[in-house]
Amino acid sequence: MDGDMISTDALVIGAGPVGLFQVFQLGLLEINAHVVDSLPHPGGQCMELYPDKPIYDIPGVLRYTGRELVANLLKQIEPFAPTFHLGQEVRVLEQRPDGRFFVETSKGSQFLAKTIIVAAGVGAFQPKLLKLDGLDKFNDSQLFYRVDNPDDFAGKKLVIVGGDDAALYWACRLATEGNTESLTLLHRRDVFQAAPETIARVKALCDAGKMRFEVGQVTAYDEKDGQLVAAQVTDVDGLTHPLPLDALLVLLGLSPKLGPVAHWGLDMERKQLLVDTEKFSTSVPGIFAVGDINTYPGKKKLILSGFHESALAAFGAAALVFPDKKIMLQYTTTSPRLHQLLGVAGT
Amino acid sequence: MDGDMISTDALVIGAGPVGLFQVFQLGLLEINAHVVDSLPHPGGQCMELYPDKPIYDIPGVLRYTGRELVANLLKQIEPFAPTFHLGQEVRVLEQRPDGRFFVETSKGSQFLAKTIIVAAGVGAFQPKLLKLDGLDKFNDSQLFYRVDNPDDFAGKKLVIVGGDDAALYWACRLATEGNTESLTLLHRRDVFQAAPETIARVKALCDAGKMRFEVGQVTAYDEKDGQLVAAQVTDVDGLTHPLPLDALLVLLGLSPKLGPVAHWGLDMERKQLLVDTEKFSTSVPGIFAVGDINTYPGKKKLILSGFHESALAAFGAAALVFPDKKIMLQYTTTSPRLHQLLGVAGT
Repeated sequence: MDGDMISTDALVIGAGPVGLFQVFQLGLLEINAHVVDSLPHPGGQCMELYPDKPIYDIPGVLRYTGRELVANLLKQIEPFAPTFHLGQEVRVLEQRPDGRFFVETSKGSQFLAKTIIVAAGVGAFQPKLLKLDGLDKFNDSQLFYRVDNPDDFAGKKLVIVGGDDAALYWACRLATEGNTESLTLLHRRDVFQAAPETIARVKALCDAGKMRFEVGQVTAYDEKDGQLVAAQVTDVDGLTHPLPLDALLVLLGLSPKLGPVAHWGLDMERKQLLVDTEKFSTSVPGIFAVGDINTYPGKKKLILSGFHESALAAFGAAALVFPDKKIMLQYTTTSPRLHQLLGVAGT
Repeated sequence: MDGDMISTDALVIGAGPVGLFQVFQLGLLEINAHVVDSLPHPGGQCMELYPDKPIYDIPGVLRYTGRELVANLLKQIEPFAPTFHLGQEVRVLEQRPDGRFFVETSKGSQFLAKTIIVAAGVGAFQPKLLKLDGLDKFNDSQLFYRVDNPDDFAGKKLVIVGGDDAALYWACRLATEGNTESLTLLHRRDVFQAAPETIARVKALCDAGKMRFEVGQVTAYDEKDGQLVAAQVTDVDGLTHPLPLDALLVLLGLSPKLGPVAHWGLDMERKQLLVDTEKFSTSVPGIFAVGDINTYPGKKKLILSGFHESALAAFGAAALVFPDKKIMLQYTTTSPRLHQLLGVAGT
């Protein structure tokens, strides 16, 4: 069944800023990369945790939001046309007798990679679950942790649980485009952790009767004929009442899970992969680790450190991908070959 | 005489991009820095060697010229208000019994510094000399290697030697603003290493009679009554003729000299300072080295590596400057204290 497998010189696990810049550094050494990430879009923590918050310590950039940093990195790596495999986690990683690594993701994508660069940050982001006994049997039928298609909620009594930017974003969007029968946003308190303009938008939509907002927490649920029919909502006074629904969209944020990385037999220290500072290689030659997931003496979890690590890991990977080639450091300012690779030749 | 000395927690030697970002990283840890550089302006190699050439591998920035990178770094470190001591090289570096470092520059500036961070790149840039026996006795009277004040050449027969951006820039500027009696640009060939628009400007000024251009090299000189009166110019056919002059401005480019760094008793390897990768400390505790001047296993001379090194060196310096304080890593995205230091509190 190797026919469906993707053979690649380098597989980058993690599409956060460091994983993205890893693609650039590999590209400069003429290594094309595939990139896997658990989130449905590139950007990692930057996009999940602080898309609109300014970052002040990117060297040479006075101020970038997480979103701007990611957008610019995506633009920067365009010449190297990486293939993204998003919304899937690496489940299996095994070394083959020929030295290559077999990788399989949760969506069944399979790779045979000469080198692996783990840029998985604090781990694969997973939605925080609404933990109520037996509720999980409604997963993907009436209980959702993300929106795949806004039309899925058309004609339904929808309850959205959450109070952060993502929850409010989807509440507003589904209230205007979702054609739901009704839409209730439920949050445990009447203060949101979201941008002021998003909060203002929620208020405006509530005032216009497009949605309603309720303070309370889902503490139980009602089921009838195998269907979820209502959430039992407990309010701030401790009183509980039923809130009828057809669909429950839970957007309580994402939390990272280190996941299977911990089981690949790599040397670790406090949940981080131990690497050298010459090539940022893990204890298994061919597997490198860069960014927040690695550790070494002096390690600071800074994006700019991940950028440096990715550069040196690229040279480490190149030595394995091109064992017979002497890998020279060339400068993007002066090298005609790099100008060609970057698509800026003749400028 | 300690009264005139500047006491400082950190002295950064070198104002190239890595030295500038070092100021930023020290500033985040509440260490103010003084910065010494041999060039008359900040920017180091970036400004001297490729001010207008694009750099493509600054993470998150599609394309920066050297000039743009330096301008943005200067803007980024503004909140930390470093004091620059430019146009001077460090001549003396000695450790005092109390552990502090005494530093003296070629202009006589004196410092007592708790920590030194050497970010001197390939060394202090020195103008390439016109080497003719005895010519150096006219240094600073009729022979110049840089322009301090354009008015210095007013009323004089000026000859400028050189063919790069700097030579052409000064030729154009002095031809228009210098009030010279005459101005001749002399270059060994009729091809310039300069931006096309600068070359076009030289041609236009020649056509307008504001200056003249001659192909040839200075191979001897004429002296009369202790004054330099002419350069003997040898042309491409090997013929030599005198070119009368009052002042000779030699702009043949700059070449870096490691200089006194080599004599400070620090462990070196092939003209680079050996450092650890935990704090980027040299073999003398309290003296750190970052950027192109250091070496360690895996070292690549990349600006982005210097940025990482400066971050870790700042933590190394902070441990010495604040021996009783636990230094925590804080993030510019979230830390109210850092927002205060950066002058962005409340945004």
